[in-house]
Amino acid sequence: MRPSGRQTNQMRKISFERNFSKHAEGSCLVKFGDTHVLCTASLEEKTPPWLRNSGKGWVTAEYGMLPRATGDRMKREAAAGKQGGRTQEIQRLIGRSLRAVVDLGALGEKQITVDCDVIQADGGTRTAAITGGWIALYDCLKWMEARSMTKVEKVLKDHVAAISCGIFAGQPVIDLDYLEDSAAETDANFVLTGKGGIVEVQGTAEGAPFSQDELLQLLALAQNGTQELVALQKQAIA
Amino acid sequence: MRPSGRQTNQMRKISFERNFSKHAEGSCLVKFGDTHVLCTASLEEKTPPWLRNSGKGWVTAEYGMLPRATGDRMKREAAAGKQGGRTQEIQRLIGRSLRAVVDLGALGEKQITVDCDVIQADGGTRTAAITGGWIALYDCLKWMEARSMTKVEKVLKDHVAAISCGIFAGQPVIDLDYLEDSAAETDANFVLTGKGGIVEVQGTAEGAPFSQDELLQLLALAQNGTQELVALQKQAIA
Amino acid sequence: MRPSGRQTNQMRKISFERNFSKHAEGSCLVKFGDTHVLCTASLEEKTPPWLRNSGKGWVTAEYGMLPRATGDRMKREAAAGKQGGRTQEIQRLIGRSLRAVVDLGALGEKQITVDCDVIQADGGTRTAAITGGWIALYDCLKWMEARSMTKVEKVLKDHVAAISCGIFAGQPVIDLDYLEDSAAETDANFVLTGKGGIVEVQGTAEGAPFSQDELLQLLALAQNGTQELVALQKQAIA
Amino acid sequence: MRPSGRQTNQMRKISFERNFSKHAEGSCLVKFGDTHVLCTASLEEKTPPWLRNSGKGWVTAEYGMLPRATGDRMKREAAAGKQGGRTQEIQRLIGRSLRAVVDLGALGEKQITVDCDVIQADGGTRTAAITGGWIALYDCLKWMEARSMTKVEKVLKDHVAAISCGIFAGQPVIDLDYLEDSAAETDANFVLTGKGGIVEVQGTAEGAPFSQDELLQLLALAQNGTQELVALQKQAIA
Amino acid sequence: MRPSGRQTNQMRKISFERNFSKHAEGSCLVKFGDTHVLCTASLEEKTPPWLRNSGKGWVTAEYGMLPRATGDRMKREAAAGKQGGRTQEIQRLIGRSLRAVVDLGALGEKQITVDCDVIQADGGTRTAAITGGWIALYDCLKWMEARSMTKVEKVLKDHVAAISCGIFAGQPVIDLDYLEDSAAETDANFVLTGKGGIVEVQGTAEGAPFSQDELLQLLALAQNGTQELVALQKQAIA
Amino acid sequence: MRPSGRQTNQMRKISFERNFSKHAEGSCLVKFGDTHVLCTASLEEKTPPWLRNSGKGWVTAEYGMLPRATGDRMKREAAAGKQGGRTQEIQRLIGRSLRAVVDLGALGEKQITVDCDVIQADGGTRTAAITGGWIALYDCLKWMEARSMTKVEKVLKDHVAAISCGIFAGQPVIDLDYLEDSAAETDANFVLTGKGGIVEVQGTAEGAPFSQDELLQLLALAQNGTQELVALQKQAIA
Repeated sequence: MRPSGRQTNQMRKISFERNFSKHAEGSCLVKFGDTHVLCTASLEEKTPPWLRNSGKGWVTAEYGMLPRATGDRMKREAAAGKQGGRTQEIQRLIGRSLRAVVDLGALGEKQITVDCDVIQADGGTRTAAITGGWIALYDCLKWMEARSMTKVEKVLKDHVAAISCGIFAGQPVIDLDYLEDSAAETDANFVLTGKGGIVEVQGTAEGAPFSQDELLQLLALAQNGTQELVALQKQAIA
Repeated sequence: MRPSGRQTNQMRKISFERNFSKHAEGSCLVKFGDTHVLCTASLEEKTPPWLRNSGKGWVTAEYGMLPRATGDRMKREAAAGKQGGRTQEIQRLIGRSLRAVVDLGALGEKQITVDCDVIQADGGTRTAAITGGWIALYDCLKWMEARSMTKVEKVLKDHVAAISCGIFAGQPVIDLDYLEDSAAETDANFVLTGKGGIVEVQGTAEGAPFSQDELLQLLALAQNGTQELVALQKQAIA
Repeated sequence: MRPSGRQTNQMRKISFERNFSKHAEGSCLVKFGDTHVLCTASLEEKTPPWLRNSGKGWVTAEYGMLPRATGDRMKREAAAGKQGGRTQEIQRLIGRSLRAVVDLGALGEKQITVDCDVIQADGGTRTAAITGGWIALYDCLKWMEARSMTKVEKVLKDHVAAISCGIFAGQPVIDLDYLEDSAAETDANFVLTGKGGIVEVQGTAEGAPFSQDELLQLLALAQNGTQELVALQKQAIA
Repeated sequence: MRPSGRQTNQMRKISFERNFSKHAEGSCLVKFGDTHVLCTASLEEKTPPWLRNSGKGWVTAEYGMLPRATGDRMKREAAAGKQGGRTQEIQRLIGRSLRAVVDLGALGEKQITVDCDVIQADGGTRTAAITGGWIALYDCLKWMEARSMTKVEKVLKDHVAAISCGIFAGQPVIDLDYLEDSAAETDANFVLTGKGGIVEVQGTAEGAPFSQDELLQLLALAQNGTQELVALQKQAIA
Repeated sequence: MRPSGRQTNQMRKISFERNFSKHAEGSCLVKFGDTHVLCTASLEEKTPPWLRNSGKGWVTAEYGMLPRATGDRMKREAAAGKQGGRTQEIQRLIGRSLRAVVDLGALGEKQITVDCDVIQADGGTRTAAITGGWIALYDCLKWMEARSMTKVEKVLKDHVAAISCGIFAGQPVIDLDYLEDSAAETDANFVLTGKGGIVEVQGTAEGAPFSQDELLQLLALAQNGTQELVALQKQAIA
Repeated sequence: MRPSGRQTNQMRKISFERNFSKHAEGSCLVKFGDTHVLCTASLEEKTPPWLRNSGKGWVTAEYGMLPRATGDRMKREAAAGKQGGRTQEIQRLIGRSLRAVVDLGALGEKQITVDCDVIQADGGTRTAAITGGWIALYDCLKWMEARSMTKVEKVLKDHVAAISCGIFAGQPVIDLDYLEDSAAETDANFVLTGKGGIVEVQGTAEGAPFSQDELLQLLALAQNGTQELVALQKQAIA
């Protein structure tokens, strides 16, 4: 049995609060249970140096945690003077995941930065960030469409959503909270598109190595879970 | 006339949402109109090196802004590799303001860190942070009291609240929003206790120098404003 | 009674040594008793990015302390890898104070950097820096005038001078030295123009909060003190 | 057809040169074709702070690239003042992979740091580093065994080896070199144990998303490849 | 007697392995006994800012040590976040030494960066780096000559080679290894050209000060040693 | 002829102002013509980690330049976030030079830090710093002797002084000022003891390589110059 009392294939309560921020072109407060991530999408009329005069744009992401988003207070990265390895790993993952469904040529020479800031953490912050980040990105493109700068459907080719799965107490389970995550034998994050294509798989054996069968069981959970998340995204932007 | 349509002595709508965070010993989402600051108070069983074995504790503050809390996206300080001068100035002010009403000896060898993170900015973030930070600090002490670690009234000697005042279009006004703040000739932040004592005055001529009379007019506005804020704090913790 | 034996309204011996530096366009070694600050003004043919093509110039300040300017040796900020919060707070204050009496449009697209380096500290380094920095700035403009680059009176609209006041042993006193500063209940720095306008007020309760009356007493001391400093500045540049 | 002319399931020429370093307790120059990584294992009588007095040891890894290991010279990370996100991601992966086959309790309160420095890069540096790092770790434990500090078989529970697979020109292929890697649609790194258990899977769609079938094809390639690598490791330490 | 059993005027076995790197325009693995340094020369179509539009090029050097190049593992400079003083001192020396024999005007507006990375250290890494760096630089210019970008003989005016000498156990000796270096009373590095001109002398008394006579004895050893090194360089590029 | 009109063997006007600083245990403002360096010696009851419990002390040096000590304003190293290579090279040289005449065992487990801050630069700052640093160190030891903490003569074994020499317009000259230094073909710094022993020689060919004869001519100039400096040191402490 899961500490949360959930079924093995049951995600936490998911919600999206659009337009959470007054300033950003797109924004969304996404909640996966007690994990709350504020995603804002900011449009800038510039691109990274390597894309200058290429006609292409860029979508990138940054990730941060408020110092007391967690059970124990963590040192503020701005005070420490650098972003840790975990932070960099996660923000690179979010950026890659969102770019997988974006036509950068159709975007044109602009940059959209999706900031994902964890207000409260209870496991699965990176998957919440990707799933909510997609909404913020969508709303940013809507904002541009309203100003005749682009068409959403030309730039955004599909949905993308992410979920963590893991083997907990010998059972494959979906959407691990912190308690489950700390004790899981295997932890895997899956990023899938609306059409079910796989964008990222990151599986790690925390304890004993896992088998091909277990990987497939986790993937099956993730396929169902991300379809559900995509349905919720559709509902949110309807 | 103020862009916000407010009276010269009228503050924005103020609200405090206690226990905003699941993890922190004390927390409060404070809103001064569209300025939203999340304050969390974290208790740690350690003190700064210079207080070791002194029997005294410490209260300190850190301040941050989410990159898109503002109209234009600001570079993330963690990515920039350091906290800017403005950030350091503000967090030092918050820390001093809160310590002004704390008996550090009564706290004992513990440290409470009040993190003030600006979720959305519209002027007056530092004054909102001090005012809301006091609630987070109060709740952290309540948490300790519930565990027989201390008595709130022994440690917390008074309320503290802060408000910005300024001369806008030739008129002394209270609680400037961003539009007013950008155009103000003089900008002053006042930190006062519940009993009306002054903890901090920081007045700056943005345009022409100001006079003693003007300083007194701003102080009068602040005295009324902070009394109102203290009343709202009392209501919030009731 | 003050440890220094001075009257409550008596400043320390003040002196300005102009042209202290062979290289700088303007320079001044200012002494407020045992507090010695070397101020140099450096002219550069560039402006900060946000002023490019605006026709306006910029005056900025940097502040530093030699490691053994103080009673105990402090870690060198260059070795520590960053400027501390106090340093940044002070250099921002000096810059704002000097800009308050400069017509940046009349300066044209140039930058003057006033470096204030504390050779020896005994309290009041920031007020000495502002007061001496004005002389360095004046001499830099004189240097420019001699080369027909500008007219001093067009750019420099007034004098500016600064003094610390505080409540020491229950008495309002002016120009606190280190011993007094460490023990003061309230510490306030005032920056005033030659005409008596207030540019900055920064008052902090170190112990108990202070009252409006006390603030006014400190301001009165500062008004007299800065007038005296302005008179000394006039004498120095005569 | 692959640019290298290799079969889809054919790895590059693999070699291990043990004892490459005079100083390190264990060391190995591993070559996967033109990718050359020097792995050294350094024993230290200390553990990270969170393991003090736990009776457990730690195995960690650091990763670096010589500036001209690549086709274009890259900025030296030591000169840039920080390790990039890619570096941190890779060294975290190497550390986790090696720890997956180590009994940290049996190691005792010691730390082994495996440094993986890329002398020349041609794709697959992280998989070469893990595979060669295992040899360096083994030799370090042998060194300890020779000094009666431990028994290799108590600490090292299994082999671990890693290989990259990808979909190139529509074909699943193994052990991508730089040319293939740059053009691959999907890129996946697999870390497996000697017994065939999966330690890490990291699959990324560089172009179009990939399917479950494709993931399984890549995994099948990796299972064969890592078995071959483990056989070569056995041969090398025989 | 020297720990190494060498004669006082006997250098260690010296070797140069050209074209060690597949990618660099010029490269050389130089060995002075157990001191192994990989030198790569990278051509870039850019120059430092101060040479823009001067028609002149630049030759610079960077130096690094792998963390376990030494007897005890050293902290990785990239992880520490900065290059130490010793590293900076050495890379400045290497750059100056190579520039001493280069006609920067004949090179034209290009930059050649010579990276010297110590794979294994046993004393004398900086002298090996200079001596091997010359080979890498030569091969880079050869590469350019093959593409009709320049003529080697126009740019490279002479050979340059370096050797350490010292007073060990009261005896002037050449090419100190680590054991000798640690115990030497005086340590001096000499950089000489093919024609015997002195480019750099850096002599340091580690214990008692040394005399003019001793300096001359060390210089005599170095003159012979560098002539031998130049002969080996000629042989290597023949 | 030298731009300064000096004879080839004529140093600039040298002066030492002892007790320049109110706070430091020892201090000296040393002037070599227009080169002014403030040297302070600070005693601390701690040693570097590698000397703990060794019974030995440490003498170290730090070097800095005020931003406008030079003809053009240099970026403040504290603002840049690190000490440059030149700074580190110089402060290591000063430290080694002073330690060459100190008996660290006789000092006991204490550290003396000699800060050398260049107030105004006109060539030869490092040699002025060493020569004046010796005075500051001497006065610090005197301060300790006055408190019965040590005996000066037990700790300080000899004088140490430094001078730059160079080949300017084909002529060996002593004590180069900035104009001469910029145009010199060869630049050499010599550090000698009171007894004439050589502590450091650092000769660099800025243009053409130099010969053994030239090195000896420079050394001869330095031997006379440092003897003169030692005589002036003796006079200063008399």
